[in-house]
Amino acid sequence: MPLIRNIHEAQMSPVQMDGVQGASMAVMIGRNDNAPHFAMRSFAVEPGGHTPKHQHDYEHEVFVVAGNAKVLLEGELHELKAGDTVLVPANELHQFTVPHDATEPFRFLCFVPVEQNCGGPVPGS
Amino acid sequence: MPLIRNIHEAQMSPVQMDGVQGASMAVMIGRNDNAPHFAMRSFAVEPGGHTPKHQHDYEHEVFVVAGNAKVLLEGELHELKAGDTVLVPANELHQFTVPHDATEPFRFLCFVPVEQNCGGPVPGS
Repeated sequence: MPLIRNIHEAQMSPVQMDGVQGASMAVMIGRNDNAPHFAMRSFAVEPGGHTPKHQHDYEHEVFVVAGNAKVLLEGELHELKAGDTVLVPANELHQFTVPHDATEPFRFLCFVPVEQNCGGPVPGS
Repeated sequence: MPLIRNIHEAQMSPVQMDGVQGASMAVMIGRNDNAPHFAMRSFAVEPGGHTPKHQHDYEHEVFVVAGNAKVLLEGELHELKAGDTVLVPANELHQFTVPHDATEPFRFLCFVPVEQNCGGPVPGS
């Protein structure tokens, strides 16, 4: 059977990292599915939640599925809405923050390469 | 400025390949944006339209944004709806076909590596 899965039916797991609040994720297409170059992960961040403020030596490509948030990028906050696409370059400090008064979770896809620059596995890929 | 663009505001261009009908696309994050490993392209296929029935030596990772279609994969047709994710492995024959009676375009994201196995650029990346 081909790998066809819906993000709304996938089992989400809490993201357990320093600096995370109210975020969960599911790997939709990853290393365990024999993705050869990059992985697709689905994230949901609750109102008032956020991803860690961090940076790493690989890029993100992000697609906003639903909801609203702000992304810290290049030292400034930028508003995000459904349909937005974002390139987070390698080594760029970034964080997604969802307003406390948001009416729904912020849902996005975040793609990463499956290998870092020196050939090791990317966490969560 | 960071690269933040919305798929609904991007300029779509007709896909001009043999075997394509009613398809348009925009590169959201690609080689020209210095995407180092993979490219994000946004596609729309009109009711009654289809992508080419073809195969190539690199994979697709697909996310369905809106609408309905069937995908040919592993020799069979599979129904697709919003929120679905699909891995099209390298060298696998595939085609997306939108029913004539669909009420809206089929919109999806299709990710490809920016380089093929031997180092050349992937078309449309």
